[in-house]
Amino acid sequence: MRIAVDAMGGDHAPVAAVSAVWRMARERSDVNFLVFGDESEIRASVQGPAPDNVTLVHTDVRIEADDEPVRAVRRKPQASMVLAARAVREGEADVLISAGNTGAFVASGLLVMGRLPGMERPALAPILPTFDGHGVLLLDAGATVDADARNLLEFAVMGSIYAQQVLGIERPRVALLNIGTEEGKGNAVCKAAYPLLASAPQLHFIGNLESRELLSGDADVVVCDGFVGNVVLKLVEGVGLGLFGALKEAFMAQAWLRVVGLAARGALSSFRDRFDYAEYGGAPLLGVQGGCIKAHGSSDARAWYHALEQAARFAERGVLDRIRSTLVEVREHGSSAPAES
Amino acid sequence: MRIAVDAMGGDHAPVAAVSAVWRMARERSDVNFLVFGDESEIRASVQGPAPDNVTLVHTDVRIEADDEPVRAVRRKPQASMVLAARAVREGEADVLISAGNTGAFVASGLLVMGRLPGMERPALAPILPTFDGHGVLLLDAGATVDADARNLLEFAVMGSIYAQQVLGIERPRVALLNIGTEEGKGNAVCKAAYPLLASAPQLHFIGNLESRELLSGDADVVVCDGFVGNVVLKLVEGVGLGLFGALKEAFMAQAWLRVVGLAARGALSSFRDRFDYAEYGGAPLLGVQGGCIKAHGSSDARAWYHALEQAARFAERGVLDRIRSTLVEVREHGSSAPAES
Repeated sequence: MRIAVDAMGGDHAPVAAVSAVWRMARERSDVNFLVFGDESEIRASVQGPAPDNVTLVHTDVRIEADDEPVRAVRRKPQASMVLAARAVREGEADVLISAGNTGAFVASGLLVMGRLPGMERPALAPILPTFDGHGVLLLDAGATVDADARNLLEFAVMGSIYAQQVLGIERPRVALLNIGTEEGKGNAVCKAAYPLLASAPQLHFIGNLESRELLSGDADVVVCDGFVGNVVLKLVEGVGLGLFGALKEAFMAQAWLRVVGLAARGALSSFRDRFDYAEYGGAPLLGVQGGCIKAHGSSDARAWYHALEQAARFAERGVLDRIRSTLVEVREHGSSAPAES
Repeated sequence: MRIAVDAMGGDHAPVAAVSAVWRMARERSDVNFLVFGDESEIRASVQGPAPDNVTLVHTDVRIEADDEPVRAVRRKPQASMVLAARAVREGEADVLISAGNTGAFVASGLLVMGRLPGMERPALAPILPTFDGHGVLLLDAGATVDADARNLLEFAVMGSIYAQQVLGIERPRVALLNIGTEEGKGNAVCKAAYPLLASAPQLHFIGNLESRELLSGDADVVVCDGFVGNVVLKLVEGVGLGLFGALKEAFMAQAWLRVVGLAARGALSSFRDRFDYAEYGGAPLLGVQGGCIKAHGSSDARAWYHALEQAARFAERGVLDRIRSTLVEVREHGSSAPAES
């Protein structure tokens, strides 16, 4: 299997990506890597020559964190991210992975690879941290705002397959993010989506989930419109970071507490680690014609390695084909059987 | 000024409400209270006779926390909450206050008092805690799902007046909750709302605010659709409580840390206090024909007292009339001047 790596995105580019690729390349001879980026920077960031299963493709163009996404993808066809996406489209690789500009990543999937046939809208699916440590797949987190009920059904199907095949959850519990637990609650989209989700035989739908319980571990896959998902993702990040900052301040405010804080540092930082990022591992972009894994922009080599594992499993388990065939099934079911309510 | 109090809602009914009312009644002879509820329970919950400016109105019907809101308001016309709302509608009181069932509270405002003339949709406006300790007024938090751009403009105007008159913020900074900071970002409603907010001379509009910054104190009033606002409100509550639980667990996991935790208890609990509730004080329901202050369901006597202060200021500052006349202004401006973009 072949992974196309954009080495030039994220806070620790290219060293985090390259260290992780070198490590996995040495461990797994069954994975081949196409690494796109500045060759001299890449070579300078690791010791020793590239392993045999790594091919470097030089480019000195990259998409910056503050580039306007769609424009950047269109005007920088030689950017490392765009070249990596094109490698997937042209069948030279199975999965694209990048820690760069999220908007440009979504645009690369949509504009370079294109949508899956019959799919209207893609979904970005980060894994949010939960208090039980397992994480919850949230989709869509911002690729599709103004999603309709049909979109949410497709998000649920794609998320469920990803959770099963890549995250190893046998029978993923799928929930609809809503503002009440009973059927019939919520906005127009939720009201229309509930019966579609409840009647899809491909899903283990457990009903509505309120945001108060989102991080409790009660569901494995939670679907919502991309506007709502993006608000949720950034709010979790903001509240988490803010609370840690305030906690630190509380401990530093008085000399004796500072001592206590230092003593408890180990426990606090292991606890903080669980919520440091708003996301665990990589976030797949689902609904496009190719694997796409977005690593968090602040990923270090360890986080990159986890995201690479997800990319490898995505290819290994044939997730794209499973999604494609299940969506056909869902559409056929949807048009032949009336939605139960 | 006259406040109609539903004494029978919330976790600490009626004692929390009654203690706060008795205290304020003794301190302020300019405020009269109409207290609705079970007279024997109310009398049993405080020492001494009712102050002169308190009138008890007995009823043994109450709306329960798990009653279906609209049905409860329709089928329990003698419930303490409904009687209190009716007192406002009939001009016997200026403001309703309750810590009961939130849905029934909104329904009481809408069905018993009715909407302000020309107002399509009301908004519930809790104050979320911020890391700088000032709080941010969020509206709508769930009264109006599927709000349109015009609704958001009205929410902004009402929230701004409330923040100025009741919370004492001279020139409230109003922001639109969105998934990007630039104009043109977001879903269809946000895109349409931005120019309306930007061109309203009644507002100090500061642009889009991402949820990552919602609790940072960068805005005083933040507007969004009620679905999004309800998700936000409950998520802040869930993340806050979850993080405190996890923190406590981390401290209790090891004997020596338990000692450290006990030593730091004071600092932790004062810090926790700031985020214990998802909300500070009471949340007004704005857009109906009368003052409506919703106290948090878990309010103790101190929280009730703060909510009563808000209710008194609402009446004192003539907030209802200000909202009514400003909304007329906004509608006239909106129909005569084109929205700037």
